[in-house]
Amino acid sequence: MTIEAALTELSTLLGARLSRSKPDLEQHGRSETHFPLTPPDAVAYPSTTEEVSAIVQVCARHHCPVIGWGTGTSLEGHSLALSGGVCVDFSGMNKVLQINAEDMDVVVQPGVTREALNHELRATGLFFPVDPGANASLGGMAMTRASGTTAVRYGTMRDNVMGLQVVLADGRVIRTGTRARKSSAGYDLTALMVGSEGTLGLVTELTLKLRGQPEAISAAVCAFGDMDSAVNAVIATIQMGIPMARIEFVDPAMAEAFNLYAGANLPLAPHLLVEFHGSDASVAQDVDRFREIADDFGASGFDWATRPEDRTALWTMRHNAHYASQALRPGVRVLVTDICVPISRLAEAVEETRADIAAAPFPGTILGHVGDGNFHAELMFDENDADECAAVHKFSERIVERALRLGGTCTGEHGVGIGKLEYMAAEHGDAWAVMGDLKRALDPDNIMNPGKVVRLN
Amino acid sequence: MTIEAALTELSTLLGARLSRSKPDLEQHGRSETHFPLTPPDAVAYPSTTEEVSAIVQVCARHHCPVIGWGTGTSLEGHSLALSGGVCVDFSGMNKVLQINAEDMDVVVQPGVTREALNHELRATGLFFPVDPGANASLGGMAMTRASGTTAVRYGTMRDNVMGLQVVLADGRVIRTGTRARKSSAGYDLTALMVGSEGTLGLVTELTLKLRGQPEAISAAVCAFGDMDSAVNAVIATIQMGIPMARIEFVDPAMAEAFNLYAGANLPLAPHLLVEFHGSDASVAQDVDRFREIADDFGASGFDWATRPEDRTALWTMRHNAHYASQALRPGVRVLVTDICVPISRLAEAVEETRADIAAAPFPGTILGHVGDGNFHAELMFDENDADECAAVHKFSERIVERALRLGGTCTGEHGVGIGKLEYMAAEHGDAWAVMGDLKRALDPDNIMNPGKVVRLN
Repeated sequence: MTIEAALTELSTLLGARLSRSKPDLEQHGRSETHFPLTPPDAVAYPSTTEEVSAIVQVCARHHCPVIGWGTGTSLEGHSLALSGGVCVDFSGMNKVLQINAEDMDVVVQPGVTREALNHELRATGLFFPVDPGANASLGGMAMTRASGTTAVRYGTMRDNVMGLQVVLADGRVIRTGTRARKSSAGYDLTALMVGSEGTLGLVTELTLKLRGQPEAISAAVCAFGDMDSAVNAVIATIQMGIPMARIEFVDPAMAEAFNLYAGANLPLAPHLLVEFHGSDASVAQDVDRFREIADDFGASGFDWATRPEDRTALWTMRHNAHYASQALRPGVRVLVTDICVPISRLAEAVEETRADIAAAPFPGTILGHVGDGNFHAELMFDENDADECAAVHKFSERIVERALRLGGTCTGEHGVGIGKLEYMAAEHGDAWAVMGDLKRALDPDNIMNPGKVVRLN
Repeated sequence: MTIEAALTELSTLLGARLSRSKPDLEQHGRSETHFPLTPPDAVAYPSTTEEVSAIVQVCARHHCPVIGWGTGTSLEGHSLALSGGVCVDFSGMNKVLQINAEDMDVVVQPGVTREALNHELRATGLFFPVDPGANASLGGMAMTRASGTTAVRYGTMRDNVMGLQVVLADGRVIRTGTRARKSSAGYDLTALMVGSEGTLGLVTELTLKLRGQPEAISAAVCAFGDMDSAVNAVIATIQMGIPMARIEFVDPAMAEAFNLYAGANLPLAPHLLVEFHGSDASVAQDVDRFREIADDFGASGFDWATRPEDRTALWTMRHNAHYASQALRPGVRVLVTDICVPISRLAEAVEETRADIAAAPFPGTILGHVGDGNFHAELMFDENDADECAAVHKFSERIVERALRLGGTCTGEHGVGIGKLEYMAAEHGDAWAVMGDLKRALDPDNIMNPGKVVRLN
């Protein structure tokens, strides 16, 4: 058995840092969402790039699948071991290697989480802005091209990864990018790797852009009479060029979930959660201009969080949306959708989605990073009820069809994993075949996270 | 002869839109810089994507090289027909196809120039910000990952291309990206194509991000006592987070060239040319803060251009830097370097480069987009003098070695073409081999702009 042969070699290489214990395998075969347990055959805990390279070389020789693991917070089953193999857990590679404050960049190992990085940076006046909610590892965030609440201002991982060190499918170690702010020196391998979900290689080092901590921050919650007004307020704010740091939409069902789960006291109405970053003067101006727009769309109950602890409470509530939604119907599975559409089609997309939830046999919430045109529906369905399973699948198909019809994408930030694989052909046409060509070029034996992003025949 | 067989078929396909006239061939074999005339065997003038696909299919059958052509303003010999073949001139595909003002994006054909696009956009309140100086085609700008004076604020083509239509080496037409602002749906083919210099396919349509025209603009020139002070003022401005739209460095030799060529009246000193975009209030604040920093570094002779015509004169002078440098020594060739380094190493890089110019047997100027850490030396050398040729080559090697030593790149924005090919191995190591693997996967017969970016054996 080829996997067994690989494990024997890896065991010699790593000793106790190759685990085959059942709890370990189960922990690494689990998903945050609705996918069934799919454990690997072993979990490796490397300490260095050289070790990762050695692991991959062994696996390459034996055609044994290799799957990267950060914190396990991805939502599309990215780390499920569909064909077994070795899960490479990067929790032991969690050092901040270099803080270049003058250049506003940082070099980290892939197991560093975004919160750990920002903790480490707290004395520098700088911070890493990408915020997907979960305290994900930076390696994992790069691999799913994560973004989250602050992308409207600071961009996604695509915009914030300057360079990578990558172990390829044959064990070669390459560096992509430099510490220069821009380059035209050949193909953009950094961008090719970001979002590749471990199917082209394993990231062992990242160089990331940092930002200056804003002088002033102001955040607020406000309610709207209907969904259209809330979404149109977002569109107007974007089009006026008001530089928001965050602008999140919450539907009435989500507001109810926050009340129940987080002890919030929100009216059961659509809400916007906003935040502005800048100088004292610019934030004050931005707040005034947003307030005017929101008032035009009938916003009410403005609640400004100017104290840091109030802002922390606000965004902690937001970040727990997934768990709050789950709590609306305990014990069932959750499917999370992730479409992103051009901003002009956002109101339409949200309205149609709300109607689909109203017609569904399960509860659902809507919330999202509407400044980017990206929103999520969380659907709490009973996996033991065949009708609900069929309905949730139909829902997922319809929302993706909607995204594509409106000029958007099936996934704004969660990635493909196995959850979006069935929509790739519709979204990309022949370009999906090109992705397959690239995969074959860099991983001819299909050992790197097989079964994700592309389908090879 | 395989090329002849292709041309016979193409002639049937395109009629008079396949040219073999000598002036046409020479025009398309010319470079803006020091490379010798290298004409193609024919020039094709397609009108549609379907025609481009048909041209590539013919060329694929006959293994005939295919080279894209925008306006011919690239600086590294990107369009030179090293192995002959067909130059595909996109000047006939110059339509703005769709202006989506609400979504702040636009769909264009590759032959649209940046000035033509901005002219077309003038009534919308929007503009396309990337400004490499030359009135280049947007297809060409995407292919070289161009940037220029405004990248410090608005990013490069990497940041501003949302999606592409591409004709691949086998004639297949694919679409990359969507009109959504972000996506995690698989490999980032848009980013792979941007900067690929026509070696992976020909771009036949681009979707580009637009920005709102700033409410207020203010620009200025100021002089410094020495280069270090000027560069350190830039570094301080960046690190303070002052959002500049442009910040350009000019050395004393370049100032002299502007005086001679553009009738400027600059003291023979290092200068900064800056511009701020924003609201009236924010620009006023930015100007004050920059002024304070510049004063700290001993800036003098501040000249503010608040009238649009004064700003146009300022940036036209800047954009003609290449011709102004050339005019310092008429009749000789110009080699333009393009390194980009981390901002903390910029002063060092510029100083060492100035010393190399002082020691060289030819005149040279320095200017650049120093907000990104990117600057150019323009070297006017006599191609008939063997010593000068050897010296200019040595200069180029030294400046690239400097960039790499300081953590930077051999080319910030001009691209590889043939001029930077010899430095790719040093900059990328094994990652350059990976670029070769990708090239082979998408263009196994090496017909797309052969001899550029990668070397295949």
